[in-house]
Amino acid sequence: MVLCPTLIHGQIDPSNRPNFIIIFADDLGYGDLSSYGNPSINTPHLDRMAHEGQKWTNFYAGASVCTPSRAALLTGRLPVRSGMSSNIHRVLFPDSKNGLPTNEITLAEQLKKAGYASACIGKWHLGHKAQYLPTNNGFDSYFGIPYSNDMDYIGHGDYKELVQQNLKALKTEDYNVPLLRNTEIIERPANQNNITKRYNEAAVAYIKEHKDKPFFLYLAHNLPHIPLFASEHFLGSSKRGLYGDVVEEIDNGVGQILKTLKEEGLSANTVVIFTSDNGPWLPFKTHSGSAGPLKAGKGTTWEGGMREPAIFWGPGLIEPGMVSELGSTMDLFTTFSAMAGVGLPKDRIIDGKDLSETLFHHKPSPRNSILYYRGPELYAVRVGDYKAHFITQGEYGQFGEREVHDPPMLYNVNQDISENFNIAAEHPEIIAQIKKLVEDHKSDLVKGKDQLAERE
Amino acid sequence: MVLCPTLIHGQIDPSNRPNFIIIFADDLGYGDLSSYGNPSINTPHLDRMAHEGQKWTNFYAGASVCTPSRAALLTGRLPVRSGMSSNIHRVLFPDSKNGLPTNEITLAEQLKKAGYASACIGKWHLGHKAQYLPTNNGFDSYFGIPYSNDMDYIGHGDYKELVQQNLKALKTEDYNVPLLRNTEIIERPANQNNITKRYNEAAVAYIKEHKDKPFFLYLAHNLPHIPLFASEHFLGSSKRGLYGDVVEEIDNGVGQILKTLKEEGLSANTVVIFTSDNGPWLPFKTHSGSAGPLKAGKGTTWEGGMREPAIFWGPGLIEPGMVSELGSTMDLFTTFSAMAGVGLPKDRIIDGKDLSETLFHHKPSPRNSILYYRGPELYAVRVGDYKAHFITQGEYGQFGEREVHDPPMLYNVNQDISENFNIAAEHPEIIAQIKKLVEDHKSDLVKGKDQLAERE
Repeated sequence: MVLCPTLIHGQIDPSNRPNFIIIFADDLGYGDLSSYGNPSINTPHLDRMAHEGQKWTNFYAGASVCTPSRAALLTGRLPVRSGMSSNIHRVLFPDSKNGLPTNEITLAEQLKKAGYASACIGKWHLGHKAQYLPTNNGFDSYFGIPYSNDMDYIGHGDYKELVQQNLKALKTEDYNVPLLRNTEIIERPANQNNITKRYNEAAVAYIKEHKDKPFFLYLAHNLPHIPLFASEHFLGSSKRGLYGDVVEEIDNGVGQILKTLKEEGLSANTVVIFTSDNGPWLPFKTHSGSAGPLKAGKGTTWEGGMREPAIFWGPGLIEPGMVSELGSTMDLFTTFSAMAGVGLPKDRIIDGKDLSETLFHHKPSPRNSILYYRGPELYAVRVGDYKAHFITQGEYGQFGEREVHDPPMLYNVNQDISENFNIAAEHPEIIAQIKKLVEDHKSDLVKGKDQLAERE
Repeated sequence: MVLCPTLIHGQIDPSNRPNFIIIFADDLGYGDLSSYGNPSINTPHLDRMAHEGQKWTNFYAGASVCTPSRAALLTGRLPVRSGMSSNIHRVLFPDSKNGLPTNEITLAEQLKKAGYASACIGKWHLGHKAQYLPTNNGFDSYFGIPYSNDMDYIGHGDYKELVQQNLKALKTEDYNVPLLRNTEIIERPANQNNITKRYNEAAVAYIKEHKDKPFFLYLAHNLPHIPLFASEHFLGSSKRGLYGDVVEEIDNGVGQILKTLKEEGLSANTVVIFTSDNGPWLPFKTHSGSAGPLKAGKGTTWEGGMREPAIFWGPGLIEPGMVSELGSTMDLFTTFSAMAGVGLPKDRIIDGKDLSETLFHHKPSPRNSILYYRGPELYAVRVGDYKAHFITQGEYGQFGEREVHDPPMLYNVNQDISENFNIAAEHPEIIAQIKKLVEDHKSDLVKGKDQLAERE
């Protein structure tokens, strides 16, 4: 049975549940796609996806680094609630003890309630021990490198320095990262030269094999996180250099996926979103992406750290156009649950909002605020156009040391897109409003036990 | 007779000459359109134009300020040759004595040789005395404000300060700029509240009236140069604030123009380009545009000063796609001359290149270099991916004082899009190649007499 979801009175017909595909890039900046203004990287497939779908310009990752961002995406909850954010270690490492707590409900678990098949392909980074892997978190299958591709370094010298200074000397064999199928290591070190190609192929194969059942495919590329690798066909494809080659290979995979959906008659009942986990890792110079006009990058709570390209596609479901409403990766949990007809868990706070009305009809987003956490600490809050920075802190030696601001710095991030002009003195009433929101938020916040702190 | 140009062996059939429309914005930055990455300004018409046509990402204005940039566009020559650049006054003022020398050949004069009708609508800024106006430079008619919309200030206080501090207090009556029809002042002060609307309407009317003859329409908006004005319908339209409202009104005009071309059966034989004269005037904060990921803005020879959005449109003629080849506004003179079958003047150096093969067939651009002049002095040179800065100088108190660099600073502007990483030490051979190009250029350079220096 091929499902064809239909909008009845502007809502999904609950008997026709759409498929969901999340394509998640790693460390891709706001300005790294041609449709988001990159002059040297050509991403025609993502650009067409944006033209045919919705291009969101105020869409946020759940955190500015990998592990908490992915926890937010899959649970629809601020990572501070699940304990998947920390001020000791910012992400999980190959010797980390823990992972996503078992009592957290992932989007895969949520969709399983409605009979969805599901697969995770690519980077996981929510715990590499068997009990934390995708197959124990609602996914039917897993194929990928379970954490960052720069971990398990076994080459000589400081790898970050090497990456910066002599990139071609670094080989995939210098990183002893494992490639897993379900919970088994099938290759180590994983051959990263063609890892993006293999992920893309696995995604296409999965779609072809699951056209008769509603499915959820989570394709989380390990790249363009450093070290950068592209398969032979893409090496030298981009004027942007290797970083551009990598992004263009990811773009090509998006093209293959959309083509497959069309060929298999699934394009009318599949919602695809492309976004990324956090901003560009700037110290790696040309091996880092660009946040475009946004300030700073990965690791910070400036816009460049957490605002990401986000393209929704689903002909007949998603109403094409640019959307400058607020959105968050956490909203995917709530939105896809609603589209699949699955009620939200009642026993916990879910931070995600249902964006269906914006996606289907360009209605205003139900999301009016963004909470910018760094580890377990709230650094900044956006309400509508305005963003208050209570604490700022650069990262990786850039953008300054930790600084507490009282009164907070205030920016109109729609008008002042690069966060240049502090207008706190002119708008005490907005600061008061934001402070009230912070109070309300903190009043029912229970911070989860830090899952990233313990290492073996 | 409606002309329908056809490509014979990939070239324009000379008996079917296309119409040309140049839509030229003022102080619009590289990052000010949604298709060039602006998150808060929504320009659906320009975005569609880019989707249906060619979006160039390495396209340059002929200078980083208004008057020389416009001289370059209309003559196909570096302004240093015509004397339309100066180190005394950077642009023409209402008390300037001179204008574009009579012996310069404008694109309008050039196309007149092939029987084109032509009109200039909008900002001229190549001399406001009758002998310098469009109607004495090959255009059949003129309607517009002959120089910048912030000139002839008659309000109280320093207007730049006022613009920054209290924008709503500034009224169109504070600027005593004239509105001309041909050489006659028809309104003074020009009502700027609806000036963009009137320019758009005049452009649409002109197209409707000239559908039976090949025409050249030069629509040069006075905005989004400060002071900013939008007509009532657009006030508040953009989340970006007034600057966004202004750009969105210009975008709307582009939509009207393309719609008119389609309705009048002209879309298959008209080439439209949208671009701007120079980068954003950054000191005006949120009343300035954004250069997106590019460094600095108006007045400088960093990329943000001279690289501009450039969208070519012409269904059936222009092959859609993103183009990261090099192009310059000077190339329009040469390209449109070629398309119209008009030979180039033999008695002078024309700097423009014929981009037809790139526009029609995505062939590599014949342009391999960009010369970045500031006034009559060469500051920087780009050859292929590489740009050498021999001199850098900020502007308006930003981006530093004048500094001479020997050896020059060197950037790979395709890989390092924000000009952050000087790689001069690694590439002496590229510096040598660029220096050779500079020598060759200077060997036959005759600088024209400074036309901007004298004021009354």
